[in-house]
Amino acid sequence: MGSEMREPLKDLNACGLPEALEVMGERWSFMILRASFNGLHHFEEFLSELGIARNILSNRLGRLVDHGILDREPDPDDRRRIEYRLTEKGFDLLPAMLALRQFGQKYVDGFVATDPVLVDERDRMPVGPVAILAHDGRVLSHADLNMVARASLPPEAKDRQEGELDPGTRGWIDDSEEAAVAAE
Amino acid sequence: MGSEMREPLKDLNACGLPEALEVMGERWSFMILRASFNGLHHFEEFLSELGIARNILSNRLGRLVDHGILDREPDPDDRRRIEYRLTEKGFDLLPAMLALRQFGQKYVDGFVATDPVLVDERDRMPVGPVAILAHDGRVLSHADLNMVARASLPPEAKDRQEGELDPGTRGWIDDSEEAAVAAE
Repeated sequence: MGSEMREPLKDLNACGLPEALEVMGERWSFMILRASFNGLHHFEEFLSELGIARNILSNRLGRLVDHGILDREPDPDDRRRIEYRLTEKGFDLLPAMLALRQFGQKYVDGFVATDPVLVDERDRMPVGPVAILAHDGRVLSHADLNMVARASLPPEAKDRQEGELDPGTRGWIDDSEEAAVAAE
Repeated sequence: MGSEMREPLKDLNACGLPEALEVMGERWSFMILRASFNGLHHFEEFLSELGIARNILSNRLGRLVDHGILDREPDPDDRRRIEYRLTEKGFDLLPAMLALRQFGQKYVDGFVATDPVLVDERDRMPVGPVAILAHDGRVLSHADLNMVARASLPPEAKDRQEGELDPGTRGWIDDSEEAAVAAE
């Protein structure tokens, strides 16, 4: 990774990192998130599956709700029960969660094939890597990256954000209305 | 994300998550890593750029070296100085770091275009998303994922790990010797 420019390193808030760290960086919060991605929704399920103390669970669920990561709502099948469900913002943590998972799988000692295994629904094949894509969908390695002044971008990219992909890029599946309309 | 199967949720160690969390989840460690990706190598640089206390910096650098994320070696230009450089394992944290960054950029209030901006070296365009790829390079959303028993995979995928991509998949760039040979 080159760096013609350096980010303002003291000012973590400027790039919004602390929230994702606050949300995922703490061990119990992370385990609750992982359980949510595994389809758990109820307080008592988290309690028994995670082996977590009741007060800590209550505290961490509250924090995840405060951050808009989980929604707290009555269970449609039994209105007296409360359900915790991932919001769209919560689902947006998935690439980071899986990147951490894959790092762990690569570097844990004596790793053997995971079971259960995460697959894509269509082909039922184990998922590929969590990868950094270029604007046109190329997979980038760290050597392909550079940090540059915005003023040095090509004119057509002046207002472009990190994280955007060219329209119509092959294989790109997103949840936007545009994509839903295109698929019809 | 579907889940025909559930991971063993109590046993975080089984999927190697704690190491990545230990390494990245703590605020100062995260800031040191971010500074490393920005090209900082020396103790005194970290000290002045991050506004971190000397003893905390020393402790966190030591931990990152212990985890094999940073290498500690004499500066080739001045053998009395020590350099801290990202190892290959350290660079493997980049997808997770960038996924957290992009999450922050998406959800921080009043976000405006970042400057400096992370680009791909070839096109000097802002990078695209950190994305979950299928075995064949398709970009997957959370709705495309499922957690299944390994025994239910197609026969050719029985020994396949998560994180592998089909050989020759378009756009795939990796650092392996095989790729280097193929590029010649």
